[in-house]
Order: sequence, then structure tokens, then C-alpha cells
Amino acid sequence: MRANPYATDLDQNAANHQPLSPLSFLERTAAVYPDRIAWIHGRTQASYRDFYRRCRQLASALSKRGIGLGDTVAVMATNIPPHLEAHYGVPMTGGVLNAINIRLDAATVAFILEHGEAKILLVDKEFAPVVGDAIGRMANPPTIIDIDDPLGPDNALIGEKDYEALLDEGDPDFAWSWPEDEWQAISLNYTSGTTGNPKGVVYHHRGAFLNAVSNAMSWGLPQQPVYLWTLPMFHCNGWCFPWTVTAYAGTHVCLRRVEAAPIFQALADHGVTHFCGAPIVLNMLANAPDDVKIKLDRPISVMTAGAAPPAAVIKGMEAMGFGVTHVYGLTETYGPAVVCAWHAEWDALPEADRAAKTVRQGVRYPMLEALDVMDPETMTPVPRDGATMGEVMFRGNVVMKGYLKNPKASGDAFAGGWFHSGDLAVMHADGYIELKDRSKDIIISGGENISTIEVEDTLYRHPAVLEAAVVAKPHEKWGETPCAVVTLKPDAGTVTEQDIIDFCRENLAHFKCPTVVLFDDLPKTSTGKIQKYVLRERIQGA
Amino acid sequence: MRANPYATDLDQNAANHQPLSPLSFLERTAAVYPDRIAWIHGRTQASYRDFYRRCRQLASALSKRGIGLGDTVAVMATNIPPHLEAHYGVPMTGGVLNAINIRLDAATVAFILEHGEAKILLVDKEFAPVVGDAIGRMANPPTIIDIDDPLGPDNALIGEKDYEALLDEGDPDFAWSWPEDEWQAISLNYTSGTTGNPKGVVYHHRGAFLNAVSNAMSWGLPQQPVYLWTLPMFHCNGWCFPWTVTAYAGTHVCLRRVEAAPIFQALADHGVTHFCGAPIVLNMLANAPDDVKIKLDRPISVMTAGAAPPAAVIKGMEAMGFGVTHVYGLTETYGPAVVCAWHAEWDALPEADRAAKTVRQGVRYPMLEALDVMDPETMTPVPRDGATMGEVMFRGNVVMKGYLKNPKASGDAFAGGWFHSGDLAVMHADGYIELKDRSKDIIISGGENISTIEVEDTLYRHPAVLEAAVVAKPHEKWGETPCAVVTLKPDAGTVTEQDIIDFCRENLAHFKCPTVVLFDDLPKTSTGKIQKYVLRERIQGA
Repeated sequence: MRANPYATDLDQNAANHQPLSPLSFLERTAAVYPDRIAWIHGRTQASYRDFYRRCRQLASALSKRGIGLGDTVAVMATNIPPHLEAHYGVPMTGGVLNAINIRLDAATVAFILEHGEAKILLVDKEFAPVVGDAIGRMANPPTIIDIDDPLGPDNALIGEKDYEALLDEGDPDFAWSWPEDEWQAISLNYTSGTTGNPKGVVYHHRGAFLNAVSNAMSWGLPQQPVYLWTLPMFHCNGWCFPWTVTAYAGTHVCLRRVEAAPIFQALADHGVTHFCGAPIVLNMLANAPDDVKIKLDRPISVMTAGAAPPAAVIKGMEAMGFGVTHVYGLTETYGPAVVCAWHAEWDALPEADRAAKTVRQGVRYPMLEALDVMDPETMTPVPRDGATMGEVMFRGNVVMKGYLKNPKASGDAFAGGWFHSGDLAVMHADGYIELKDRSKDIIISGGENISTIEVEDTLYRHPAVLEAAVVAKPHEKWGETPCAVVTLKPDAGTVTEQDIIDFCRENLAHFKCPTVVLFDDLPKTSTGKIQKYVLRERIQGA
Repeated sequence: MRANPYATDLDQNAANHQPLSPLSFLERTAAVYPDRIAWIHGRTQASYRDFYRRCRQLASALSKRGIGLGDTVAVMATNIPPHLEAHYGVPMTGGVLNAINIRLDAATVAFILEHGEAKILLVDKEFAPVVGDAIGRMANPPTIIDIDDPLGPDNALIGEKDYEALLDEGDPDFAWSWPEDEWQAISLNYTSGTTGNPKGVVYHHRGAFLNAVSNAMSWGLPQQPVYLWTLPMFHCNGWCFPWTVTAYAGTHVCLRRVEAAPIFQALADHGVTHFCGAPIVLNMLANAPDDVKIKLDRPISVMTAGAAPPAAVIKGMEAMGFGVTHVYGLTETYGPAVVCAWHAEWDALPEADRAAKTVRQGVRYPMLEALDVMDPETMTPVPRDGATMGEVMFRGNVVMKGYLKNPKASGDAFAGGWFHSGDLAVMHADGYIELKDRSKDIIISGGENISTIEVEDTLYRHPAVLEAAVVAKPHEKWGETPCAVVTLKPDAGTVTEQDIIDFCRENLAHFKCPTVVLFDDLPKTSTGKIQKYVLRERIQGA
């Protein structure tokens, strides 16, 4: 057998091979557009020159304190500049950024800090009380650095020093470390597991680089967008947008509060062109009081994710002039890795057909190599019939390294060479997937599967319904039946349980209709997901 | 020393790691947009469904004929569909595509076929005569497949069979091979070396994937562009645009002849949004007869590359309504890897200042990790003074694997961990590079460096000059002095040598002005580069 000439004397060297890293995007944008605005926060802003210097100061200060390869630095903060800077300054040391969900309780925060072995924790003073409680429970708490944001609440500081004083310890011209290997960890994100301890999802430089670009390809992001931070940065590293926006020399508009008034104000004040948000955020904007809404004088692009019922929500946003791109992913896939890639000809479809296209999660991101819906027992794809349910499976470079210190969970997640999402979906004839439910949320009634998403989508179409969730309720005869929990719009007037049930029966197969409708608030996770396990407990007696 | 928890039980597996390959873009676009037009050629066209099937047929047919990992398949063709399909069908087998310059003579073609060890050669019948001559010189010629393009000239066929008959041997559902390693070779491109034998530049899947995307980021390419093939596909694999356009679900508009009339016709007929071309092509369009030009009813984006004097050319194109992006690169960098990233505020500069920005080559592509101008002896960067010349050096993932079967040349090119371009440039204060010359073209007159590009740029500003090139002429006193060779516009009227010299003396330091001006045609390479070595020979007696 002859030698392959293309595999001879053609090795990797420093000139032709570098580890992929999203850190390179900041270095480039700061070099090319040093005067462009990198971030805006209230009345303060920083140019890319200053942003890059501040990130290097942070990296330098952390290095001096011993942070290096494989060391964890945690942050618990709203979407403020230090949080953004940590996305660069921490990995510039070789360290790993652990952005913690800001709505967690002290016990869970303590668990995460211990499990992730954080050496330093940057704390937005808004969360000083819960962090103070958390570290009180720890044998070996991390060093605490306060982020004394002038726009934050007037809480007592609890740390060794303030973030700005930490930066003062660092060198703005610090020669930061390019990763030695693109497989090196860049961040650690704990799942918001509804049961059991959260799992620590590990991202690497390669995947962060690729999904940052894949976001832009999927969204048609232009150069120099103005991006509003409505999506929490602690949520899958803000779906990689700290890196995407910087790669495109965009401006990050920071935001402490995800509320309708400050969002509309920011849209008006800063020339925002793009933002992301859970459907719950879009719903909030679409249903905001008229005196809070602004009239858009330009197109604004919105990316929204998830399995929540988006048809009515997306329609509401589009009516206000927003362009909505629907994506889907999980913490384990760096945020979005599936996009409802739109076909221009769908614009001409009748309303109902168009809505049916809108709610589908879609196709793989350009940099996810494979996506399928499979029977998890046999690992064979389901038929492309839009009806047979299977589990959504991912394969590619934007799938996590695995779960930290949890080889059992990693092995289960990667069984058969695919990442098992735990989400149930159908595959349509055209290769678009449509989520039907989380595995654990599906309702089985008289042997028939009922997609809670489908029932919720119907409930959202009722003109009086603001939010809705459907969970299984044990039933003597059928095993389970759907129970709906609904909140009504402020101006809804009088609506009865029977009104809602009748509406569903007009629009759904009867076996799928709720047998019980409760009018109640919906408990949500910090990322806006409805906590169905709480609802299941709540309805036991209903 | 503790173990790094992020490097423990978090290995690569089939679910979370795949080799990067631009082949994945075709698979995705064909799956998501099967009905979209992939290519147009004359009155024929193919959907992405059909394009993907044809590529798999080609891969299948080649596999059946024994093509596999590390085997070379060559193609010598204009920008027609089989050439595009070869960019997918050949690497789908594990093989390597060698696209041969269509203007080469038989001896050079024979050298390339022998050196590259091509097993099969696809030949556009336009080049049957030269290929027939070339293989007559070879002991072991490759199998010849004719491409009997109906739009080609009526030459005799010379191959075993026709391309379409080859496709008929293949399975349109062929399960093609994903590369096992992203460092695997995807293509082989011979330099158009002006002296000595051409060198075989080897590209890998990783670099082709990354530069395909980097093109789009740098150009602000939207989804679904309509791309006209004015740039030869044999030139650095068409700067990776066979992969870029497909990744963005665009339409490839094929073109046999790079002439003004068919280009303007294609722009008018097919809704073209983007094309690339050497400055010489832009010059041809800007100077086309009025009855050939069309009035553009929409913006068209043009990407142009190189060290040729673009200021006047770019201005001419912009006056016609084209938006021009200026890039720079070499065969060794997958085509363009540097871009003159534009700053909106430059639009307001006075004409001359704006032109000075326009002619700069610029900054690194987003996926080139480093670019600098260095003293090649000391490998230290030149001062950022816009005056000190040094050699342009590249480092990153869009630099070639090396030269095939030429470890000496590869070693020289990668000395010191940077790719040495052989191009001389200055570095401006803002980090933008500006080419001054090829190392071998620079003129040294009385100990002073004279950039032939700077002199040519001045000549192009003379209203009667169509094309110009400057080379060194030996001089007893000064060592060398500039000699200009100029072609005039058809309507130029009477222009004398002294007129041209006077114009230069008004616009340049006197020592930089040509001492001799010849009015003559300019010899060019197949990619439109002026062959200065031919001019140097020609002017010996002038």
C-alpha cells in the first residue's frame, strides 16, 4: 500500500493551526474598531478599546490571584458589563466561567459553588443576601468580589473588594493565554433541573466559537448590530451572544431588569436592532400596556427559543413590527442549535398554515452536524410523518463536552453516539422537527399520547388567555387527563372554566381537552420556563 | 498537583465532536431548501435536491473507479456545473480535487498531472486540444472524462466517456464519507509561479470550512445570495465560494466567458446580488462600451482582491452603483484572508483621503488568527508608521497544510512559525496593512525603495490610461529606474511618453517617476495578474 502523499510532510505547525476560540473575536474587533461602542449601561459606555483593556485587566488580576488552567471563577449577576467582561477575562486566564442563575436559593447556590469548585465569585450586590447565606453554608467558600453597580439596589456589600478595585490590580496590556487546545473548557453552566441536583454542563472553546458564528448565520446577523441584553447571560452563556455580538463588532446594550418599560425604553434610546428572549418575554412585550409600548420606526429582529407555545405570541410580536426567528436548543447544546429556517413562500400561506410552520422548531444550525428524532430504545429515526413521536437527538460540534464530575450522566446523555435531549418531537416530511413535549410532561390518556404543547397552543389562542400550562392529572378511568392552569389578561372580563373547555373542544380532538381548568398564577424558573412539577403538586387536590 | 476536573471524563465522542467540513453545508442546504435553485447554466438549472444528488452520483462513480482517501481527481474547466459539482463529489470520496488553471500550456499541465498524481481528469472540451497534447507527454496519463458542455466550443472529445455518462455510473443516494479528520486534504491548487515549477498548495477540510464562513462574515453576505461566477473556480477553489454560497443556500450562476457582455447580461437576467473578480475584471466592466453596460436597478456587491492598483478601478465601479469590498490573500491562504474592513465615518472623508483608505488591504479575516508585517530576518514587526516596509506574514487556520511533496518549500514558507507571503507592505497606525510590492518586483533606485504599486496607482489616475504596469529597468547610475508599460483607452486620443512622465512628476516624488514609458499590451496570467517577468524581459532593449 502506497503512502498517502497528503498525509506526509504536511503537519500542523504554529503558522497553519491555532485552537479555535471566541476570545479571538474580541482581539480582532478591538484592533479593527477600537472606537466603536462595545457596551452601554445606563449613562456609561465603553469603546472596544476600553472593553478589551478591561477584560485584560480582569484576566491579569485573576491570574495574579492564582487563577489558571481549569480553575473556576463564578459570577452571579444581572446583564451588566462585568458579567460580559467575565466572558472574556476568565477564559483569558485558562480558567472556566461559571455563570450562576440569579434566581436560585442559597442552598442551590452553595451546591453549585462547591460542586464547581469556584475559587472566586463575582457578585452583583443585588444578590449579596442570597450569596451571603450560601457561603455561610460552605466549609470552603470562594473569595467574594462585589460588583457595586450604581444602578443596582442599595444592598450591603459582602466581598473582599469591589470589581473595579479588582480591575485596578490588573494590567490592561496583559498578554493573555490563548487556549492550548480548542477542546479546553471555557464555561460551566448548571442545568435548571427541576428534580435532583443540577448538573454542570461543560462548554469548550471550539464549540463556543462555532455556535457564536452559527447564531449569526442562522439569524442573518449584519455587521455592527446593536444588541439588547434581554436574555440572561447566565443562561447558556447568553446563548453564546457575548461572543457573537463581539465577533460582528456590535454594541451590547446592558439591562438589569427584564421588564416591559425598560426594554421599550432601551429600544427607543439606543437604536437596538436585535434581541433574544424566551416566549414569556415576548408575551410580556406583546401584552404590555399601551403607554409603555413604543412605535417602532425600524425593523427589530427577535430570536426566541423553546417549546412554549409560540404561535399566538409570535403573531402578536409580528403585529407590533418585530421580525421573529424561532430557535431551539438546550443548555447541553450551547443554547440554540436548531432554527425554524424560513421559506419566503410560506409568507403567502393562509394564516393557520403559516402558524403551523411558525411553531416548528426546525432544522439543524449550520454548525450542528446532525439532528434527528429517534426511538431511544432502537436508535432508529421515526418516520417523517409529522405524527410519530420520538426523542430529539443531536450530534455535532455544538454539543457539550459532558457533565462535570458526572461520567454516569454524561454516558447516559451520549448513549449510542447521540446526545439525548429528553424532548419529544415529531419529524415532518420536509425534515423539520416539531416538539411535542418533554419526556416527563407528556400525558397518556386512555393509551393515547397527548402533547401538552398542542393543548397549550390552543389555550393561547383564546382571546382572554394571557398564559397557560397543561399537566397530567391522575384519572381513575383514563390513567391521566389534561389539567389546564390559566392566567387571564387584565381586561379579560368574566371567563369560566366551562368557557375554556368549550373553546378547546371546538379546536381540539375531545380526548385532548382539559377536564379541569384552574385560574391561577404560573410558577416559573428563572429562565421563564413554567415549572410543571410545581403545578402537578398543586393540582393533586383539584 | 490536583487533576484538572475539566480534562477528566469529558472526552470527545461521536455525539459531541465531528470533523469540520464544508461538505456539511451542501447536505444541510439540500435538506432545508431542496427546491431552491442551486445552479443556473445557460438555459439549464438544478435545484439543491438535484445538485446534491448529482454530487453524490459523481462521488459514487469515482468511488467505484477506485478513488478514495488521498487520491487526486483533477478538473480543467471553465465555471460550469461539473466544476462546481467536483468541489463536492471529489472530497465526498475522501479524494482531493485538483482544479487546473485553464490557460496553462501542455507542458505545465503535464507537470501538474504527474506531480499531483491525478488518477482521473475531467476536461471541459474547450481544453481538449491542450490536454490531448499534455497527456501525450505522460508515461502514465490519468483517465480522461470529457465534459461535453453544450455551451462550449465544438472541439473533438478525447476521453473515455462524457461526464454525464460518468454520473450515470453512480448512485444518487450514495452514502458519502465524512472526512475522518478535519486536517484531511480537500484540494490541491498549484501556484501560478512566474518562475520555476508550480508548487502544489494543499488545503484541508477545516480550513475550507472556516474560510468559506469567513468570506461571508467579511462581506456581510445575506442568506440566499445570487452569486455570479466571474472568478475562476480553479483559482484557490474560487476563493472557497463554491462552499460559501452553498452554506448560505445561494444560487450559483455559471459563466463560461469572463467578458463584459455576458457578465452584464447575467447580472440583468438572473437577479445577481454578488460576484468576485480581480481588479482587471472590474476595470473591464468599468470601461465597457455603453451599449454593453446595463443600468443597475439594485445594489450589487463586488469583492475584489489583490495588490493591483484599485483606487481608480474601485471608484469607477462605485460610480456605476457597485459596492466594492477589497480583500487580499494568496493561494496559500485559501484565497482572501485579509479585508479592508470599512468604517462608516470614512464615507465622509475628502476624495483623496477616502481613496487612500480604499487601497489598503486591511486587517485579518475573522477566522485568520494573526496577520503582521515583519522584518523576515529578525521576525520582528515593523513600526506602525505607514512607511517602513516589511513582509506580510500570516498565522492561523486558513493557512495551507503546506506544499505537496516539497518539505523544503513548506519549511521555508513556515519559517519562524508564520507563513511568509513574499509580499511587501507597510503597517499603518490603525493596524491596517497596505501592500507595496511583491518582494521580487520592488525597484531599488539610488538606494531608495520604489513601490511599483504606488507608481501604477498614479498612472491609473491619468484619464487616458486603461492599464499600466511598472517594472525595474537597469540603470548605470541609479542601479534601477522605473519603466512603465501602458495601454490607453480606445478614445484616448494622442498621448506621448512625455505626457505620462509629466503627469507622474506632478503627482509623485521625482525619483519614483518612470524614466521610460512604453505603449504596449500587458501580458497576463490566467488569473489576470500582469506578468512582470515578461515585461522585464521585453524592456531589456528599450
